[in-house]
Amino acid sequence: MLVNGIHYRTVRMDDGTVKMINQPLLPHKFEIYNCPDHVSTAGAISTMIVRGAGAIGTAGGFGMAQAVLEAFNLKKDSEAYIRKAREMLVSTRPTAQNLFYAVNKVYNAVLRAPDLQTACRIAVDEAGRIADEDVLSCRTIAEIGAELIGEKSRIMTHCNAGWLAFTDWGTALSPVFYAKREGRDPFVWVDETRPRLQGARLTAWELKGEGVRYTVIADNASGYFMKLGEVDLIIVGSDRIASNGDVANKIGTYEKAVLARENGIPFYVAAPTSTIDWSCSKGDDIPIEERQEDEVLFVRGKDLDGRIKAVRIVPEGTTARNPAFDVTPARFISGIITEKGLVKPDTLAVLQPAV
Amino acid sequence: MLVNGIHYRTVRMDDGTVKMINQPLLPHKFEIYNCPDHVSTAGAISTMIVRGAGAIGTAGGFGMAQAVLEAFNLKKDSEAYIRKAREMLVSTRPTAQNLFYAVNKVYNAVLRAPDLQTACRIAVDEAGRIADEDVLSCRTIAEIGAELIGEKSRIMTHCNAGWLAFTDWGTALSPVFYAKREGRDPFVWVDETRPRLQGARLTAWELKGEGVRYTVIADNASGYFMKLGEVDLIIVGSDRIASNGDVANKIGTYEKAVLARENGIPFYVAAPTSTIDWSCSKGDDIPIEERQEDEVLFVRGKDLDGRIKAVRIVPEGTTARNPAFDVTPARFISGIITEKGLVKPDTLAVLQPAV
Repeated sequence: MLVNGIHYRTVRMDDGTVKMINQPLLPHKFEIYNCPDHVSTAGAISTMIVRGAGAIGTAGGFGMAQAVLEAFNLKKDSEAYIRKAREMLVSTRPTAQNLFYAVNKVYNAVLRAPDLQTACRIAVDEAGRIADEDVLSCRTIAEIGAELIGEKSRIMTHCNAGWLAFTDWGTALSPVFYAKREGRDPFVWVDETRPRLQGARLTAWELKGEGVRYTVIADNASGYFMKLGEVDLIIVGSDRIASNGDVANKIGTYEKAVLARENGIPFYVAAPTSTIDWSCSKGDDIPIEERQEDEVLFVRGKDLDGRIKAVRIVPEGTTARNPAFDVTPARFISGIITEKGLVKPDTLAVLQPAV
Repeated sequence: MLVNGIHYRTVRMDDGTVKMINQPLLPHKFEIYNCPDHVSTAGAISTMIVRGAGAIGTAGGFGMAQAVLEAFNLKKDSEAYIRKAREMLVSTRPTAQNLFYAVNKVYNAVLRAPDLQTACRIAVDEAGRIADEDVLSCRTIAEIGAELIGEKSRIMTHCNAGWLAFTDWGTALSPVFYAKREGRDPFVWVDETRPRLQGARLTAWELKGEGVRYTVIADNASGYFMKLGEVDLIIVGSDRIASNGDVANKIGTYEKAVLARENGIPFYVAAPTSTIDWSCSKGDDIPIEERQEDEVLFVRGKDLDGRIKAVRIVPEGTTARNPAFDVTPARFISGIITEKGLVKPDTLAVLQPAV
């Protein structure tokens, strides 16, 4: 999408360096972060310089390609080096299905290469293809999802599943961007999404950039506006979908889904099929990442002097729990918007590729 | 309760000055804020230097008494002065039932006085009595509520309905304090309670002071821990209860109540009967205060240099909605713990005083 008139992808690889929009600095500062090797790419994923289902998939794929390029320069123990890199990359974010999908896709493609030089070409090509496929899937999700959005629809979303969460376009927000570009005038309720405030920081920034009307609310207020009848539909993204249609997404998604059903509001999940973990039969089996407590104990933002600062919000000696995701059971979900169509969660199996 | 070994009430009146714990500074700094006249007391209520159902009731009663003392010194137009003061005080927080209860109780007592000098004595006595009754009610709620708390109960609470929200003891937290002092070992899940973080700042500070085990979580994570089976019961406070048992409380309470029912967790409201608005037949008739958007757009906390700072969390030009309360329908509430006993919301009428 465009930033100040220039088209950016969230993540790209340029001459062996992975370049990504530095997301913790947004919306206060727009900066590109460079990862010269797979170790720094892995670090950028785990510290969430890049975050969001598709974006970390793309970054993981590029990181895997970097490792293959590095192995070529090493000239020895290249197989062990690539295997170790794969392990490092997939362990950065345990819930993220797109990460495993992308890293393993590059890794498996490389396994078939006759020599390291060919492996390098294959790895770079494959990683680039994953990025392009991510863009294409999101673009298709935009069109399919936009059919749910009326002239003045009021959409609620949680966290950020916009273009910053993918290589481009996004999933939960792409139908909104598409509808806006088609001339409709949607409005978005933006949950701020504590602890990391991806809604307040990133979704708000994206919507502002696209000229979409939006209002930020505390996560606590979403049920209030649902009950008031001011929400027409909810669209969220996903970090992993089990084969029975249970959906892991940002912590708090489960709460919104339960409240949506209570208030008769359609609740959609938008995700490319690469987010579906066919080997996982139900949501309870999805590992939930628990992140460091400082994300809860401190809040980062811009002070009056324009500096980005963290402020402590609790008494000294306070502990916190910080699960990054929760699982929404399939029965709360009206439909899953994929690049292959809108399906009910209990008919997800129709999307399963033939083995 | 005790702060560093010294007993404090949240609000008291001393020689015509209303003295209150300055709550926006907590937990970073403990300081007493002095209001020399009713206008400054009204200002302290509306800016939330004092907040919490019972504490603003007590502050409002004292503010009304201050106005009577001021009128006595004026010597003319005293009736109009007192009437105007009453209007100012009740308009500070539109949802707060205890505020109207206390201000009107002092005002009506004064109306019966034969002269202004007697009115002064009556006003100060009545305001003091309201404060003492608030303490006594909370102490009784502590005992009644503690019967719900087992040896190792895991209680979730939202916002702060501890002693800082009342004159002393509190409502939702007083049973926890009581159980702890009785030798039990309760644990509290503390919702941080955006936007003003009363959970992270105040509930955590109170629990730390009483040596109760607690963990702070993002509001988004409460449903996750309920679904995991790690919450035995929920207790919250209330700012106004309609006569049908619908309860207004801090924004987000409704979300927790819906999730509690979904997960089969008992959901209790603790409040003195002064919180019940017998003239209000249902929750939809309770006016909901909407506060300034800056409470959502900025977060206050302590920076690494020890200064209390506000940091901006959204892009420039972003708007927010900031309802301070929501209404939980009676059907989601397992019981209301009052100083007159634990009642089901649909049998609230048994508590109604004979007119």
